[in-house]
Amino acid sequence: MVVTSDSESGLDIRRLCRTGDFVEPTSGRAPGYVQCNVVMMPADSAHHFLGFCEHNPRPCPLLAMSEAPGSVALTALAADIDIRTDLPQYRIWQDGMLTERCDNVTHVWEDDWIAFALGCSFSFEEALIGAGIAVRNIIEGVNVPMYRTNIPCTPAGPFAGNMVVSMRPMPAADAIEAIQICARFPSVHGAPIHIGDPGHLGIDDLGRPDFGDPVTLHSTDMPVFWACGVTPQVAVENAKPALRSPTNPATCL
Amino acid sequence: MVVTSDSESGLDIRRLCRTGDFVEPTSGRAPGYVQCNVVMMPADSAHHFLGFCEHNPRPCPLLAMSEAPGSVALTALAADIDIRTDLPQYRIWQDGMLTERCDNVTHVWEDDWIAFALGCSFSFEEALIGAGIAVRNIIEGVNVPMYRTNIPCTPAGPFAGNMVVSMRPMPAADAIEAIQICARFPSVHGAPIHIGDPGHLGIDDLGRPDFGDPVTLHSTDMPVFWACGVTPQVAVENAKPALRSPTNPATCL
Repeated sequence: MVVTSDSESGLDIRRLCRTGDFVEPTSGRAPGYVQCNVVMMPADSAHHFLGFCEHNPRPCPLLAMSEAPGSVALTALAADIDIRTDLPQYRIWQDGMLTERCDNVTHVWEDDWIAFALGCSFSFEEALIGAGIAVRNIIEGVNVPMYRTNIPCTPAGPFAGNMVVSMRPMPAADAIEAIQICARFPSVHGAPIHIGDPGHLGIDDLGRPDFGDPVTLHSTDMPVFWACGVTPQVAVENAKPALRSPTNPATCL
Repeated sequence: MVVTSDSESGLDIRRLCRTGDFVEPTSGRAPGYVQCNVVMMPADSAHHFLGFCEHNPRPCPLLAMSEAPGSVALTALAADIDIRTDLPQYRIWQDGMLTERCDNVTHVWEDDWIAFALGCSFSFEEALIGAGIAVRNIIEGVNVPMYRTNIPCTPAGPFAGNMVVSMRPMPAADAIEAIQICARFPSVHGAPIHIGDPGHLGIDDLGRPDFGDPVTLHSTDMPVFWACGVTPQVAVENAKPALRSPTNPATCL
């Protein structure tokens, strides 16, 4: 869920989050541990959201969900998780509107809530760096640029919307290697969904991302696009139910 | 070495070649059998050529070589091979010049010759087609376009030269899948070495290949470049020894 440098474990970071002592993005932390985007919502919407993940596994690779409504553990993922407190930050939507940012959701959690943990691209960035590939957003110290595309997700109940992609520019030889590396990690978005012309995805201007920050593109770079964990956030906004659905901004925005 | 449609085996095709009854390119034949480029030369040059293959495994993936000078078998590859007769066609170079085309080399074979079998891209084309990827040169019924690049091979003795690449245009989504598929076949050139801008390889005009035939590029296509088995032919031309070195044109030109 969260991780740090060198010997730091996921649990180390979760405990820091739990006490409010860690409120930063988790990119690059706890190497070797999978990173997740987290979405929570009332059980009466959750079965539709589960369907949305199953229909759209590239942007929404489901790693774990609450075993029962109200359960704050995700035992399939790790021991000692309290999903209400163990993320660095949360965002709360109500009726499709972002209403609050906070470092825990204990005050709004209800006993019919279900939490979903979805694989995050922060995990494969670690693998790319390990293979000697320069990840531009990390080098430039900014969040990865993300864009709304013209690719519709398969809807499920009220959850619908177009896929959001993250983009990392790199030379073609690195792109070829990145495709091979990321294909080995289907649970954290897998291989890129597109390389080259952004117009193919309906993206007009790479310099103006819809989420995150712009990064530099060199003349020898090729933009490489991955399905992104912000996709479910857009689907939650579109759902506009009387729905409180905190997501983890540390790993998705 | 050679293969045919459906139930046809490599041996079936080799036997047809042996009797002079098959003199065509082997692309698409004997599915499931590996396809090779073959190079033969006197033993006193062969150790350098072996070094050239070892130094440049992407264009020259060595699958088998004669166990001893003069041996016409390649037992590591298959039973019942006579390398003097079992290819559809041969080309003979002398002093770096192409001097003869023929359907066997029995008349020039000497007892100090060594044969090399190198993996050929015809093998991975079968895997691409199996995955539903349209291979443009096969659809258009022509040989794949090949280009001399600005990428120097690592020389070995007299063998030196720039890498030759084959190019197959396809939509980006297919290119991403082709990279994953071909990475699984390092013995037949493996993953592409470049995607996108041909100028990066020193290629001015995709419409004018140095070997093979031009193919159509659609506006949504991305050119995808693989290391090519014509590379050793260029190295043989450059070596210009008093060297007779038939290669199998059916699989490389």
